[in-house]
Amino acid sequence: MAAAAVANGDFSAGKSTPEAGRFSTVYSELQRSRIDHALPLPGVLTGNFTVVNGPNSSAAGSPDEIAKLFPGLYGQPSSIMVPRDSEGLSSNQKLKIGVVLSGGQAPGGHNVICGIFDYLQARAKGSVVYGFRGGPAGIMKGKYVELTWDFVHPYRNQGGFDMICSGRDKIETPEQFKQAEETALKLDLDGLVVIGGDDSNTNACLLAENFRSKNLKTRVIGCPKTIDGDLKCKEVPISFGFDTACKIYAEMIGNVMIDARSTGKYYHFVRLMGRAASHITLECALQTHPNISLIGEEVYAKKQTLKNVTDYMVDIICKRAGRGYNYGVILIPEGLIDFIPEVQKLIGELNEILAHEAVDEAGLWKIKLTSQSLELFEFLPPAIQEQLMLERDPHGNVQVAKIETEKMLIQMVETELEKRREQGVYKGDFKGQSHFFGYEGRCGLPTNFDSSYCYALGYAAGALLHAGRTGLISSVGNLDAPVKEWTVGGTALTSLMDVERRHGKFKPVIKKAMVELEGAPFKKFASMRDDWAINNRYISPGPIQFVGPTSNAVSHTLLLELGAQV
Amino acid sequence: MAAAAVANGDFSAGKSTPEAGRFSTVYSELQRSRIDHALPLPGVLTGNFTVVNGPNSSAAGSPDEIAKLFPGLYGQPSSIMVPRDSEGLSSNQKLKIGVVLSGGQAPGGHNVICGIFDYLQARAKGSVVYGFRGGPAGIMKGKYVELTWDFVHPYRNQGGFDMICSGRDKIETPEQFKQAEETALKLDLDGLVVIGGDDSNTNACLLAENFRSKNLKTRVIGCPKTIDGDLKCKEVPISFGFDTACKIYAEMIGNVMIDARSTGKYYHFVRLMGRAASHITLECALQTHPNISLIGEEVYAKKQTLKNVTDYMVDIICKRAGRGYNYGVILIPEGLIDFIPEVQKLIGELNEILAHEAVDEAGLWKIKLTSQSLELFEFLPPAIQEQLMLERDPHGNVQVAKIETEKMLIQMVETELEKRREQGVYKGDFKGQSHFFGYEGRCGLPTNFDSSYCYALGYAAGALLHAGRTGLISSVGNLDAPVKEWTVGGTALTSLMDVERRHGKFKPVIKKAMVELEGAPFKKFASMRDDWAINNRYISPGPIQFVGPTSNAVSHTLLLELGAQV
Repeated sequence: MAAAAVANGDFSAGKSTPEAGRFSTVYSELQRSRIDHALPLPGVLTGNFTVVNGPNSSAAGSPDEIAKLFPGLYGQPSSIMVPRDSEGLSSNQKLKIGVVLSGGQAPGGHNVICGIFDYLQARAKGSVVYGFRGGPAGIMKGKYVELTWDFVHPYRNQGGFDMICSGRDKIETPEQFKQAEETALKLDLDGLVVIGGDDSNTNACLLAENFRSKNLKTRVIGCPKTIDGDLKCKEVPISFGFDTACKIYAEMIGNVMIDARSTGKYYHFVRLMGRAASHITLECALQTHPNISLIGEEVYAKKQTLKNVTDYMVDIICKRAGRGYNYGVILIPEGLIDFIPEVQKLIGELNEILAHEAVDEAGLWKIKLTSQSLELFEFLPPAIQEQLMLERDPHGNVQVAKIETEKMLIQMVETELEKRREQGVYKGDFKGQSHFFGYEGRCGLPTNFDSSYCYALGYAAGALLHAGRTGLISSVGNLDAPVKEWTVGGTALTSLMDVERRHGKFKPVIKKAMVELEGAPFKKFASMRDDWAINNRYISPGPIQFVGPTSNAVSHTLLLELGAQV
Repeated sequence: MAAAAVANGDFSAGKSTPEAGRFSTVYSELQRSRIDHALPLPGVLTGNFTVVNGPNSSAAGSPDEIAKLFPGLYGQPSSIMVPRDSEGLSSNQKLKIGVVLSGGQAPGGHNVICGIFDYLQARAKGSVVYGFRGGPAGIMKGKYVELTWDFVHPYRNQGGFDMICSGRDKIETPEQFKQAEETALKLDLDGLVVIGGDDSNTNACLLAENFRSKNLKTRVIGCPKTIDGDLKCKEVPISFGFDTACKIYAEMIGNVMIDARSTGKYYHFVRLMGRAASHITLECALQTHPNISLIGEEVYAKKQTLKNVTDYMVDIICKRAGRGYNYGVILIPEGLIDFIPEVQKLIGELNEILAHEAVDEAGLWKIKLTSQSLELFEFLPPAIQEQLMLERDPHGNVQVAKIETEKMLIQMVETELEKRREQGVYKGDFKGQSHFFGYEGRCGLPTNFDSSYCYALGYAAGALLHAGRTGLISSVGNLDAPVKEWTVGGTALTSLMDVERRHGKFKPVIKKAMVELEGAPFKKFASMRDDWAINNRYISPGPIQFVGPTSNAVSHTLLLELGAQV
């Protein structure tokens, strides 16, 4: 009833065997209905247009160093698509374009590929698109598939990256750059689209510079992908996938909130993805109004200790108990403890000590810790102490990422509440319930927003390559307006860059966009959280809809950053 | 933008203060749109109808004992609503009806209340509905609110139980029955609707019997509620909430499947709610086609050991590795280990030993275990051994419910795979990722199915009380047909009952409906699982839709049990 097999087309065209073994996929009724969902395009892309230059660009920081690292690309202008009466780009040109998905999944990646494919079908008939399999390794190893309409079509508006799969390899060493060149030459590539996060787009720019320096014709365009939302700038207002992932998490949080209120006896500690930045937590907070949300960037800016964070939570829990509320919902960003300087210090010391010392039962090894770190270590719940001591990576380092922060916080809150109970200031009941929402959000069916946004990003990437541009990131703007009013162009990747010193050398990096404490989303949150803490203002957004009410909603972070009222 | 305050009306009417403190609730745009979603009614309830008797009933088991326990009610016929040319039930009658939510949340509970309310408004104008607050305790303590249109309206088609909240107290002792009588007398109740699971409906029947034996006019009608799906019989084809909860879990599982396939490197172990029966796991398996699904009832029927279960999983993982698939999705019912006899035996022995012995470091206490239990104990991962020894409830008993089964299985699978690697029969990579989907599903926005089904259940309950019936459970059938063709009636609660011997006495119980290994849902699953195990047949149902494709889908279990093809 609800499922039908969709054949994947013939892999032999790409002279490659299927990696993921996905010869045929069974689709749910909703997935199938989404294949035929018609995608609107920004107005400028529907008629004749041409690509014009904006002003020359600089760098996000250290322009002199960026100029040295990218002598061929530094300073190049951005590109803007503008309407024009006659054909702007020759439709007689046949292009050979490669596309690669890099890093973790984000809903909408397939639509970027569909956008590239459809652009070339519409505007440069006879062009060929190659999909590199399994991420950048596919470029280096020459593993690819030629994308045909039959092959691409079943993935329209579908979640996941399984059309060509992704990978986390990087093209870094001279040998790897050489391999990429060989593939580009062998396939006679006019262009390559790299769909990825900050690292992958930095890599895309290095590839673009390298191809240019070797006089290869292969141009490189990046596309902004990450559910974490930390790849953005003025010209790239949002990374794709953030909208869908946050809505999926917000659905779950909203459900848990209603459960909390109905049951009246649990504090739900919800850890959310987002190791480097807390955008997901902030967006989910704006969508759902939890009692407590910890924002890593704020914890860091205020130099808070783990004790401070615990006290902040416990103070609210005590106040709520005073009002008869022994329940609540607390959002925690995955990377919270990375933002706490004292924890970083403790972990550094532990790594040092554990590398050289045997750990004695009596705990004599602890005298090697500084007094501050010792105090923090003793403050940690025993289970976490044990985890820090026992679970180490192959280099012997403490595995911070393995710490289940939400469970750690539950234990710390419990301990502190017991103290307050003894002091007679807390008389409530506390039961913590932990959750981690992560994988559920990375591969959901893209929202209408992400579907349209990704399609426009891909279409723009095709046009930028058609216009011979390189070293740009596909940029679609004016996103709070209807799709037909969206602006389209490309932004110089070097303009997003700064350098970091690693092993004595300058390395170019696209700085991660952190939650700005002076930005509109955080300020809105900060102005409301005290009310949310004590009173119950829970909002349950419900499941993502593709038709009817809310089907065209846009994330609060994006709207607020664009100056809209939410 | 997406939220508006909905005032809750005046609590003072019920002479009770708000317990949950919910004076005003902020609604999301989708929640608000759902308030106005028009609910279809079964055709028979839209015109004139009357309530006629079906054949006399018996009991599910031990009819003689049930007859003794329910002398007033045993054997009574079921009720059926049938159309009639003229008014069937007097619309001049004014009724006073109480309603209570009992036990864990299930999506749709609010609509049962709305159905009762609307029935009385339409067919017995001037009637009064009291909502008992916080579950059966509200009946005993006389805590209630008078339900008005303004009070009820914002909860139409909304998830959660927060309109009047629920509770897990039971009316069991003679004193408690006395308290219930006093409340019934004080409020001059003509009827009481108990919305709950198997225990609560058993309780409803005891109340009905008790009220009748005391010559109270108060009738009692039950409604079948539980996301676990284990309260059902021929006349009650499904409990409400099961449909919504399974669809929410299936959305998440489907997303994780696409993630697994895109990434290609994780085995996701997903624990699902359902302690007593594995219906949720089975339904989610039918909706999503995971590689492995463990069904507790089958494990029990085949007398499988934990080692058998581990080997079953490891065999499939090895086969998949041979095909290059080092990823997969595995569904595990929350109650799995309760179905494994050897685990129950071990836990029984541990409880016995731990009650009387100190546990020595050297492990000498273990000689008290039988050899089978010792073998199993040694087979368990150390973390689980520790959990069994340390985490005990206030009575000193091992807390089985606290064991994170999915994590335990990951560790056991890891250990077994290492053995096979040493034997040279496994060369893959295994990384387990654990999930627990539970609270997220209990309070979601009810699907269109649950919304309509609950509304009909409530409407029917109102009509049954209007017709003076007692000791019945509201029964709506023909659920694979359009709503207007649904049948409506009431089934004698005693006909669902058997007895269990507890503390030397016979106790009436509604037997939990377990997964039938000869039933259509399991047989369909069993016929397909070997294919799902090795080939990838993942289906991702996507988020619940309220409009458009899939918005009227019905659960596979229900359709298969009704003989439909899925």
